[in-house]
Amino acid sequence: MQYPVQHGINASPDTTDDKQAMPHHFLHSALCVSLFATGNALAIDRESVPLATPAAMPRAVILIVGDGMDEQQITIARNYLRGASGRLLLDQMPLRSNSQILAIEDNETGRPVYVADSANTATSLATGAVTSRGRIATSAGSDQDVETIVELAARAGYKTGLVTTASVTDATPAAFATHISHRLCQNPEEMEDVRYRGIFLAACPDDMKANGGRGSIAEQLVNSPLDVILGGGRKHFAPKAEGTNVSLLELAGVRGFEVVTSTKELIQANTSGRLLGVFSPGTMPVRLQGEAGRTAEEPQPSGLNHLHQYLGSVTLPAPMNCEINPAAAAMPSLQLMTEAALDRLSQDNDRGFFLMVESASIDKQSHERKPCGSIGELEQLEEALAAALSFAQSHDNTLVLVTADHAQAAQLVPNESHYSASPIPIYTPGRMARIRTPEGSLLAVNYATNSFSHEEHTGASVPLFSNAQGLGRIPVYITQPEIFTIMRDYLQL
Amino acid sequence: MQYPVQHGINASPDTTDDKQAMPHHFLHSALCVSLFATGNALAIDRESVPLATPAAMPRAVILIVGDGMDEQQITIARNYLRGASGRLLLDQMPLRSNSQILAIEDNETGRPVYVADSANTATSLATGAVTSRGRIATSAGSDQDVETIVELAARAGYKTGLVTTASVTDATPAAFATHISHRLCQNPEEMEDVRYRGIFLAACPDDMKANGGRGSIAEQLVNSPLDVILGGGRKHFAPKAEGTNVSLLELAGVRGFEVVTSTKELIQANTSGRLLGVFSPGTMPVRLQGEAGRTAEEPQPSGLNHLHQYLGSVTLPAPMNCEINPAAAAMPSLQLMTEAALDRLSQDNDRGFFLMVESASIDKQSHERKPCGSIGELEQLEEALAAALSFAQSHDNTLVLVTADHAQAAQLVPNESHYSASPIPIYTPGRMARIRTPEGSLLAVNYATNSFSHEEHTGASVPLFSNAQGLGRIPVYITQPEIFTIMRDYLQL
Repeated sequence: MQYPVQHGINASPDTTDDKQAMPHHFLHSALCVSLFATGNALAIDRESVPLATPAAMPRAVILIVGDGMDEQQITIARNYLRGASGRLLLDQMPLRSNSQILAIEDNETGRPVYVADSANTATSLATGAVTSRGRIATSAGSDQDVETIVELAARAGYKTGLVTTASVTDATPAAFATHISHRLCQNPEEMEDVRYRGIFLAACPDDMKANGGRGSIAEQLVNSPLDVILGGGRKHFAPKAEGTNVSLLELAGVRGFEVVTSTKELIQANTSGRLLGVFSPGTMPVRLQGEAGRTAEEPQPSGLNHLHQYLGSVTLPAPMNCEINPAAAAMPSLQLMTEAALDRLSQDNDRGFFLMVESASIDKQSHERKPCGSIGELEQLEEALAAALSFAQSHDNTLVLVTADHAQAAQLVPNESHYSASPIPIYTPGRMARIRTPEGSLLAVNYATNSFSHEEHTGASVPLFSNAQGLGRIPVYITQPEIFTIMRDYLQL
Repeated sequence: MQYPVQHGINASPDTTDDKQAMPHHFLHSALCVSLFATGNALAIDRESVPLATPAAMPRAVILIVGDGMDEQQITIARNYLRGASGRLLLDQMPLRSNSQILAIEDNETGRPVYVADSANTATSLATGAVTSRGRIATSAGSDQDVETIVELAARAGYKTGLVTTASVTDATPAAFATHISHRLCQNPEEMEDVRYRGIFLAACPDDMKANGGRGSIAEQLVNSPLDVILGGGRKHFAPKAEGTNVSLLELAGVRGFEVVTSTKELIQANTSGRLLGVFSPGTMPVRLQGEAGRTAEEPQPSGLNHLHQYLGSVTLPAPMNCEINPAAAAMPSLQLMTEAALDRLSQDNDRGFFLMVESASIDKQSHERKPCGSIGELEQLEEALAAALSFAQSHDNTLVLVTADHAQAAQLVPNESHYSASPIPIYTPGRMARIRTPEGSLLAVNYATNSFSHEEHTGASVPLFSNAQGLGRIPVYITQPEIFTIMRDYLQL
């Protein structure tokens, strides 16, 4: 039996290392990453590390968000990536808490809404406020801007960064540095009413600069105090800034951002100054996909079964392997982006930083009923976490948090029904995938929240993990907005 | 913000109270229960409690199992019982860990099976073994008996008890004190092949005493070392003990059990000696039910929608209230049974005890798509937990654990779809219920793992809670069989 709490890195909040000799900047050793990636992260002997004065140390928070990463998603990924008896890096974190998600109706005395979206939940994480679905750092009903931790931190002299596998204008990153009534108002060309295939989805005109607003999310990002912005969503920076003839990408250059659009450019970029990296037009391609692109599929009952559910037979979706998505090869991994952000944010920095890192497509692939995709993106989160822990191991006073913003539709269900002794065909009314795992079993995943093209979120509370810097700071059960308070207090904002 | 860890009862494993003056028996103050039930459990000031010598204290483990009580079920119950921003008693426990469920195929080198049942999971809790679905404290493939914590504890002089809202012969209690190849071999009349509506479900003859086995579960319970057995399942004790003319209920009397079959008899029972209470023929009636007995229902699409999913409209199930199930009035509550068991087990006991308490129908009601039923049974678990914490507050060296055996089908889904802006009808292909909560919102619960009369279990890892006696003993992530090890070590077996 392991007791990670007792063997965790950064054994207490006031434990420090040898950075007394270099108090004015962070150093990031990429060598440490492999140590963590092989699962030895928690075996490091703190006794051998010299002590320094805590007061000399900058403070940093690395918040890693697994979008939609609930207990079902984590267990599915654990079984596939490590085996049923194996352990994820998440499982080796010294602190594991539970976070209740809160959302309300869109009015000032809004009643609870029990299932949230990534806009209101990111708002809770970024601002401590409870708001309504779709809102980006604005208040329910009254549409007031709510200050974010990025804004608070930047004003206090901290560097700030956002990293995501979604478009950098997507709800989760957006809520940390922009304010707008609806998540879909992503770029200047979307500031008319947002429609999708003729369907009205959101009203953005009130947020146009011409109407006294702050403009689209992309424009707000370019005008934000952020030092690092990395992810997808290049298409949102092609339009011209509202009322100008300058594209947002050009404006970013004017604002002092070094702009990169490929893995090669990211690697070759400077290590200081501001950085905007947008590596794909929209959401970045994911690492894993179902064999031949297969998703969860509907079981196929026989003709007789259509007459009565006790008759006939059913053909379940054939087992499949997960395979590498070729489109991901051109993309920087979430780990590489995280390392680049940490390098950049820690250069010549005697104050500290706030960094949010999102693995976005655990959620997006679950909406699309693609369990292999979600598994691969959870693996990406694990690698980014390894990079964050490695950084924290060589930089005390770094609080590493990992959480999900909300739960998702995927369910790990029996490959063989509990009622298989029954002679009647038994199958989900939704869609299922049966995935061959490396340990030789079949892992069945069910999606059945709706019959639409995209599944719904679900409302379960979600885990919150922390490195040892969280011990004594994070109770075993909290509401999601309290995560903001914990980060703010840690950074002494 | 609350930090339950720091304010928890039993602040450290070696904290003791004033029982030095009464080392040879436990005293259980019912007055304490109301204190805990009102949510003040964690506000007790340990400083005012005199200290005694730990060596003089008996040790006790109270393991509370919420069958099927995963994060979805807990969040559904939290929202209904306490409101979205409220806290269950579970949420106030000082320790919260996560337990990975393990099951294997039914052979000696069985590969992992990713979704378990209550028989193999109770076997893991009771014995530390990983086995196959349906098995009761026997090994996969080889069918060898695996010693249970009840047997270990009884041999070491501890008293032992099982309390459940299921039949006491049901899988969870059975695995703590009996050994049999299949959970359905519950009484002597079921020791032929078990069939349900003509469907073969299990082979029991090998376990008949006539064939060298230990006999049915009910017969094994009567012949077990258990001191207290309380729950449902009276019908399983009506048959005659195998090869005799004596009913199992009569045999229980011969074995020294006081037998009670009503709440009144339970209250009037002696406070010492062995006790068998069976209060209903099978599973005990649950506390809450849907209005007019309603369960989750299928959405009703219009005729046009049957032609194409983009056409027509859908009528979702009408909102409903949860209401008291009249049939539950005649039943002792899980709290009352727990208190009776604690009184009995702690009488004249200088060694200590092991008690398992199960709220069984969180799971059973979820199988039947009855969300109100599951909520009420989670409330029953909370009350039993309050009783256990009250006992532990006045009896140091009492480890209180709460966990689920596996995850279940119910999902908290949006009452209003995330895609409600779309003009097409969107609804689950399964069944849903929309429940009015006391705080005035609608809580939607979806069931869609299969089209059979009963839903499937799911495979997510589940929470494990503990009072402060677990601090330093329970890591933040474990596999389910390790819970056995923790309990065994605590009792120094």
